[in-house]
Amino acid sequence: MADMMMIHDLGTRTLDLLDRLAAITDEPGRITRLYLSPAHRRAADQVADWMRDRGLDVAEDAIGTVRGFLAPSAPGPQANRRLLIGSHIDTVIDAGKYDGNLGVVAGLMVVEELRARGIALPFGLEVLAFGDEEGVRFPSSLSSSSAVSGTYRGEWLDTADRNGIKLRDAIRAHGGDPARIREAVIPPGSVIGYVELHIEQGPVLEHQGEPLGVVTSIAGQSRFRILITGEAGHAGTVPMGLRRDAFAALAELATFIERATREGTANLVATIGRVDVKPGATNVIPSEVEATLDIRASADAPRLAAIERIRYEADQIAQRRGVKIRFERFADVPTCPMNEELQTGLAAAVASLGESTRRLPSGAGHDAMAMARAFPSAMLFVRSRGGISHNPAEFTSVTDLGLAVEAMIRFVAGMAAHHAA
Amino acid sequence: MADMMMIHDLGTRTLDLLDRLAAITDEPGRITRLYLSPAHRRAADQVADWMRDRGLDVAEDAIGTVRGFLAPSAPGPQANRRLLIGSHIDTVIDAGKYDGNLGVVAGLMVVEELRARGIALPFGLEVLAFGDEEGVRFPSSLSSSSAVSGTYRGEWLDTADRNGIKLRDAIRAHGGDPARIREAVIPPGSVIGYVELHIEQGPVLEHQGEPLGVVTSIAGQSRFRILITGEAGHAGTVPMGLRRDAFAALAELATFIERATREGTANLVATIGRVDVKPGATNVIPSEVEATLDIRASADAPRLAAIERIRYEADQIAQRRGVKIRFERFADVPTCPMNEELQTGLAAAVASLGESTRRLPSGAGHDAMAMARAFPSAMLFVRSRGGISHNPAEFTSVTDLGLAVEAMIRFVAGMAAHHAA
Repeated sequence: MADMMMIHDLGTRTLDLLDRLAAITDEPGRITRLYLSPAHRRAADQVADWMRDRGLDVAEDAIGTVRGFLAPSAPGPQANRRLLIGSHIDTVIDAGKYDGNLGVVAGLMVVEELRARGIALPFGLEVLAFGDEEGVRFPSSLSSSSAVSGTYRGEWLDTADRNGIKLRDAIRAHGGDPARIREAVIPPGSVIGYVELHIEQGPVLEHQGEPLGVVTSIAGQSRFRILITGEAGHAGTVPMGLRRDAFAALAELATFIERATREGTANLVATIGRVDVKPGATNVIPSEVEATLDIRASADAPRLAAIERIRYEADQIAQRRGVKIRFERFADVPTCPMNEELQTGLAAAVASLGESTRRLPSGAGHDAMAMARAFPSAMLFVRSRGGISHNPAEFTSVTDLGLAVEAMIRFVAGMAAHHAA
Repeated sequence: MADMMMIHDLGTRTLDLLDRLAAITDEPGRITRLYLSPAHRRAADQVADWMRDRGLDVAEDAIGTVRGFLAPSAPGPQANRRLLIGSHIDTVIDAGKYDGNLGVVAGLMVVEELRARGIALPFGLEVLAFGDEEGVRFPSSLSSSSAVSGTYRGEWLDTADRNGIKLRDAIRAHGGDPARIREAVIPPGSVIGYVELHIEQGPVLEHQGEPLGVVTSIAGQSRFRILITGEAGHAGTVPMGLRRDAFAALAELATFIERATREGTANLVATIGRVDVKPGATNVIPSEVEATLDIRASADAPRLAAIERIRYEADQIAQRRGVKIRFERFADVPTCPMNEELQTGLAAAVASLGESTRRLPSGAGHDAMAMARAFPSAMLFVRSRGGISHNPAEFTSVTDLGLAVEAMIRFVAGMAAHHAA
């Protein structure tokens, strides 16, 4: 069980760091801190200062990830290895203050408390503050954590932001060096694991009345453009039986997608988020529809099976209605399972707080996906109000922040005990 | 039966006039002739010339309707009355050449042929070329025919086009006089009837393989904005059961609307033509949807009953899904039945050509709606390829044009015989 005064104090100190980071923005009045922007530069410097204050050796890698290293407490068989804790400090436009930032601040809090509590570590501990998770400014995705896990894609360097600034040049202006990205790689054999604390960004923990959850996997995801071609016509003169209404076809398909998804397993979810109807006049039967379909699950097979069902049904609808329905896949990411041992360690830490050890998948992508390509990786979720994120209304209570940080401390302490034994 | 050589000749002459009108445009390369534009002025002058060439007394009323009057052939009990034939010469942007113009050209052809065939009329005949049917430039609707039927709405005069030009001033610039609109009224007692030939703008005649159809009524019409408010959320993190997806609600409602409409009677049709989904991102559950619903039928009761069913179902969907669904009615036009006697006369003329006398409703609005407020009114439809209108692809064959004009001539001859008897 946890001392609630202590939890509240931990949460308050965590929130203080989050608030100070939130003040670093490119848009006064709201939080906007895109990758390699002036605000990102200042936030990286602030995090580096905080790391030094807590006795970490600080370095910044070639593409801007701030790394603070705490050496092992003593020589020993694990002294050449390290546990990684991190997340990202870039944000979306008009962001909340918890997404990403909490995982970095939690790393700082863990270091502070390990020292304060005199907990010795048989391995090194490294706190990572990634810069490019949100993927808002450049078309790259999880590039900071990809560099660390040795999966950086060189072609990203020649992409440009909306002002035409190439990623390559933005890295240089930030003080980095595109030629030295390979040096950011951490050798997989030297890593015990990567652990990331993040707000849930979903409503499950709140709905269950539980503050913490251990992530089982990061959902696989497929995204499609659905293109429907029917025939325009006058809304008053074409009888229902002679119509080839592209929107009516989408409505029928959308209703089927929702039903098929509800019947699916493995937390299957499907979303039609963008819909564009042409010509888009009150009195004209729609001739063209373009919509997006985003479909995810915590395992690959149910997602792929659902896609099969949906495409089959789309063919039936197209044939019956005399319209054309095309699917263009523009993203496909397999399910990323989290490391079992680390999950067990996180669950034990949560249980030691007297909290329920719920396991749940992550529907959103995270740096842990890129890290999992090279390292055992795991995530701890903390309840976020209404599941709201990417929005100033993003909120996690001080108590939940304290519980989450305390769970991370206990997790590291548990790992230390395990590896010392 | 009709002599096909003669029909083809009539059609060719009709097409020639249509082509010459089509050349009068404000946008070289396509047909655009908005109300009171320079092209409208030139087209009105051209029509006036053609009227004079055919021996009509020509006048232009206070808001630009060109009127050509053929006096009765002899004194008699019907000599103070007149039969009206007309339609409009304004067009949409990038229009076809048949919509509206055909009804005016048909009036000219009727006059020409009555004279050529030596058919005497016991009543006067007046050809009307209205200027404001399409309602593209100003928010007014059917204002030319409303002026003639005494139902002009003075508030239209203070509306402005997108360049800020007031209707009142545009009328003056055209040579009209907003103060004298009342003088445009034709006393209802003096009118035998108003007859309008128009392309169908729908696929029914083509689908049936029939060139001509007699309109039974102009469909009543209700238009709504459907406003759905749900809750945004991350496409990956919110389980299906916890969603309040505004677009999923619209899809379910749209599917119901289509089914309910197919089950309806009186040529019930419903169209969702505009759909706006917010925030409109691939990975965000839609929180807001605004869509339009256009619903029409050839009788009021089935339309109003369908609206009731749809609104009831929307309430059920809203309750089940935890979303709000609001309907805002922004147009409501009752069904306008066509005059039975005139329908019979048109059907007899069509039958005399050896053609099937199909009756069908008009799903689109026409000047005949405004005319029917004061006068017995009727419409003859001619087959239009693919039901396409408001588009350069608008097409009616020369033969069909000839048949339509011949039916109009025989209709007038029939009325003459009837009233002379």
